[in-house]
Amino acid sequence: MTEIITKKSIGVVLFPGFELLDVFGPLEMFGTASEYFNICMVAENSSLVESKQGPKSLAEYSFEEPITYDILLVPGGEGTRREVRNESMLAWLRKQAAHAEYVTSVCTGSALLAKAGVLDGICATTNKIAFDWATSQGPEVIWKKQARWVEDGKFFTSSGVSAGIDMSLAIIQKMLGQETAEQIAIWAEYDWHRNASWDPFAKLCGLV
Amino acid sequence: MTEIITKKSIGVVLFPGFELLDVFGPLEMFGTASEYFNICMVAENSSLVESKQGPKSLAEYSFEEPITYDILLVPGGEGTRREVRNESMLAWLRKQAAHAEYVTSVCTGSALLAKAGVLDGICATTNKIAFDWATSQGPEVIWKKQARWVEDGKFFTSSGVSAGIDMSLAIIQKMLGQETAEQIAIWAEYDWHRNASWDPFAKLCGLV
Repeated sequence: MTEIITKKSIGVVLFPGFELLDVFGPLEMFGTASEYFNICMVAENSSLVESKQGPKSLAEYSFEEPITYDILLVPGGEGTRREVRNESMLAWLRKQAAHAEYVTSVCTGSALLAKAGVLDGICATTNKIAFDWATSQGPEVIWKKQARWVEDGKFFTSSGVSAGIDMSLAIIQKMLGQETAEQIAIWAEYDWHRNASWDPFAKLCGLV
Repeated sequence: MTEIITKKSIGVVLFPGFELLDVFGPLEMFGTASEYFNICMVAENSSLVESKQGPKSLAEYSFEEPITYDILLVPGGEGTRREVRNESMLAWLRKQAAHAEYVTSVCTGSALLAKAGVLDGICATTNKIAFDWATSQGPEVIWKKQARWVEDGKFFTSSGVSAGIDMSLAIIQKMLGQETAEQIAIWAEYDWHRNASWDPFAKLCGLV
């Protein structure tokens, strides 16, 4: 019997000042299951995009192309402070969020989704050190102070930086089953936090 | 009083098929202390380099330039199977390792250092699933089966993929002190494994 697998596309949005691990932690996990996922790097203009830490990555797709992605991944990083005022970014996020099967963010990426209005009435979390700024971008969002990640329908928002790895494994578990997610975590020798409510950083950062 | 900080340069070697998190986990940690470290992406030819997972990153430096780096970082990934036969790569690694203050690797990156001969007589570790292949590249290396990372003089070699993050924090602790390393881990909301001998994956992969 021939098994036909239709790969799910992951649209990862880059902008100057994106946080490296917000992007490449999740992409390590999804990319290891390359028979199921197709990674597409997107930016306002297809070009090299400089991260907050310096290294530059190629966005092969732009906002101009009439493509929608099955999974939207929005990273954080200091560039979000500028991007919350970028109407092209917010309009693109609204369009993608309306079509995507999963809308996901890492760190202050949820501030961009919140400013775009797509998280109104949705439970979500964000970076713990930048919590006040990030949550101010979306007063109608139901923000959770203590959570590694929050799942609400098709929306998965994670806490800061490394939390995106745990969230990605949870999404892979939901889509492909626990065994596949466990195999990917072991392959990466990663100590996966499987509990979405595990979050010592909320206390360390004085939020609870 | 004016404090003058001389940044340490980190030379990160890229090659087609490098593993994303092997590179960008460590660079998230070092890059967060950007006042102390200057990240330089290097490849045989300065160019865009495609990772095993697909995304392409820019190497702004090549092997041709007469530059040596304070810290050498060698990632793993399936491209190492080809690079162990690349004499240009091995010669460049020998030159860099001779000059660097710290010689570091993640995952099967240690197979490249071993093949270059720079780990002969040195204690080291590598990826647990690819342990047999990696260790066969350096019969004179003192390979450790169970370790998150191994420190031997100026050589730091880590276990697979995510272990590079813990190793990098240990190097930062050694160079800049525990408080700085802890602050970086908290900033990244990362559950740092501080114990170099913590390694459940050696058992999960049948090595011990």
